Amino acid sequence: MSFAPLKNDTFLRACLRQATDHTPVWLMRQAGRYLPEYCATRAKAGSFMGLATNVDYATEVTLQPLERYPLDAAILFSDILTVPDAMGLGLSFALGEGPKFARTVRNEADVATLAVPDMDKLRYVFDAVTSIRRALDGRVPLIGFSGSPWTLACYMVEGGGSDDYRLVKSLMYSRPDLMHRILAINADAVAAYLNAQIEAGAQAVMVFDSWGGVLADGAFQDFSLAYTRRVLAQLHRTHEGVEIPRLVFTKGGGLWLDDMKSLDCHALGLDWTVNLGRARALVGEGPQGKALQGNIDPNVLFAPPAAIDTQVAQVLESFGKPHQGEGQGATHIFNLGHGISQYTPPEHVSALVEAVHRHSRRLRAGN
Amino acid sequence: MSFAPLKNDTFLRACLRQATDHTPVWLMRQAGRYLPEYCATRAKAGSFMGLATNVDYATEVTLQPLERYPLDAAILFSDILTVPDAMGLGLSFALGEGPKFARTVRNEADVATLAVPDMDKLRYVFDAVTSIRRALDGRVPLIGFSGSPWTLACYMVEGGGSDDYRLVKSLMYSRPDLMHRILAINADAVAAYLNAQIEAGAQAVMVFDSWGGVLADGAFQDFSLAYTRRVLAQLHRTHEGVEIPRLVFTKGGGLWLDDMKSLDCHALGLDWTVNLGRARALVGEGPQGKALQGNIDPNVLFAPPAAIDTQVAQVLESFGKPHQGEGQGATHIFNLGHGISQYTPPEHVSALVEAVHRHSRRLRAGN
Repeated sequence: MSFAPLKNDTFLRACLRQATDHTPVWLMRQAGRYLPEYCATRAKAGSFMGLATNVDYATEVTLQPLERYPLDAAILFSDILTVPDAMGLGLSFALGEGPKFARTVRNEADVATLAVPDMDKLRYVFDAVTSIRRALDGRVPLIGFSGSPWTLACYMVEGGGSDDYRLVKSLMYSRPDLMHRILAINADAVAAYLNAQIEAGAQAVMVFDSWGGVLADGAFQDFSLAYTRRVLAQLHRTHEGVEIPRLVFTKGGGLWLDDMKSLDCHALGLDWTVNLGRARALVGEGPQGKALQGNIDPNVLFAPPAAIDTQVAQVLESFGKPHQGEGQGATHIFNLGHGISQYTPPEHVSALVEAVHRHSRRLRAGN
Repeated sequence: MSFAPLKNDTFLRACLRQATDHTPVWLMRQAGRYLPEYCATRAKAGSFMGLATNVDYATEVTLQPLERYPLDAAILFSDILTVPDAMGLGLSFALGEGPKFARTVRNEADVATLAVPDMDKLRYVFDAVTSIRRALDGRVPLIGFSGSPWTLACYMVEGGGSDDYRLVKSLMYSRPDLMHRILAINADAVAAYLNAQIEAGAQAVMVFDSWGGVLADGAFQDFSLAYTRRVLAQLHRTHEGVEIPRLVFTKGGGLWLDDMKSLDCHALGLDWTVNLGRARALVGEGPQGKALQGNIDPNVLFAPPAAIDTQVAQVLESFGKPHQGEGQGATHIFNLGHGISQYTPPEHVSALVEAVHRHSRRLRAGN
């Protein structure tokens, strides 16, 4: 496939720990319900899955935030749970509620029926990637993504969201053998899924380990991190000669940065509990260092623009002046520490993006 | 007041970082819905607040887990939100749901009406403390407690539980001056409340900063930790010549142990995400070290007893051999990393408590 040349490579350069003239910014869930134009498209589509499975709608909503804000990356509009849906678990979203699976995976018989799904069942995702990449016309790079093996398993066992992860942890502590089988299948499925996104045009891929942080120390390393590692090991390093950055975000994983240092990826996402300066010292420097992505509290966006400006400056300053000049060094990709809230005033996002660009240029200039 | 002499001081000794022959264990929310006898008493009482405000019922349920298990401490049966209730916010619990306040604190006018409540409104709590202490008859020490200033503020602003803390964080980022006023009042109220519990017979006091972990780095230090510090500074050091240990538990606070090292308290509670060995190295040793309390995942209790035994051994071993001999050193108080689930099989708690006592004796013997 051939696409238009990239006009803004700031995000990709920061992923690869190369110098940029400003700190790139994008927002998790940037195409979402806080935008009235998103709600209008979703209403036309009838349901969340109707939106996610329609190539034209998925393309339309992916580009909506870029029309409003000078963001430095686009992210595929989809859901983290498309892979277990393709495994036959029956994903749905009731209006105003989280995801639900029609079938769950809770015992040996359930696990016996699980397999890496035929990637043709996810063709709608890959078609959306190609369509979005074309529609972007080189404005900014396109990020593909998937849930992590552990995060998918949480939903597959619980059947939906949970506030205590009782069922999935009961299975993990009672039958670790079954949990490892689920996770191995998930890892191989996620790897195939992300590779197909890369082949379809994704210029970077991100693994969302949204629920890794609910695990105990020890269990995180064995049941989440090991399978993220298994995904990363299988991913295409390049596509048509271009390096494809790999990003990993474990919500609540700040305590395990030491463990994540050895992940074979380019960037680590951080939530707002992490001090960026400390994270940079731990994993941001040196030849094996990672780019750091994050980490403002999405609730900052409910404050007035002047307060948003102050908080943005604090986050940028806590990371410090990024690497400048030739070669590789510590770099920062600005983002929220979690998905943007549906209640966010859209004009506050303008204030945030503008503040990131302005303050990050000031920081580089040493003012 | 005079009470029976204490027969089992293992918990208090461990708080004071003195050697013990086994690792003491108690469980957050050990008097709770997983016990059928608790449910029977609650049914008699009619409601949660009916239970908490009745001295006889509160005494009865506090002692129930001690009849079943050889726990090393009792904790006052009450709720973390009694203080804002006494401020006039109207606390209630619908069956099967979390706490709700009839009135919330969201603007300048709301804050203007807030004040440290008359402690007489909390007399039912202090009477319960004295009654429980009498009923314990020296078997184990009694822990008093309160929610932290920040955790109380979360509920006071949100009006109940929350999954995003949008309202309280909006106030914090928009009007930090108002938030600081709420927190200062809360801190002074919590200090008076805990001092009255000490005077009524509590032999240790614990501050539950249940929602400190939802704050961003920086905000945690300014809006939670600073006010926990303000509480601790006002607490009675001794009562009738006996030292009263002070414990602080910030759920999700593992990243901030360095900041908590300087808290004027004896012990820090940890959730299951924290590696106890690393926490011990950071804050457990040296003259200003803290005892560490925690931190098994409550979901381990859904596994079969053999798996519980293995997980208990792992937690004890991750802390390592506690201080032995004269003087002070690193000590461990075994607990869950959060309150026990209402779905826990009661016989699994027996397996856990027995495993803590057995493995911790083995660990001390060096086997």
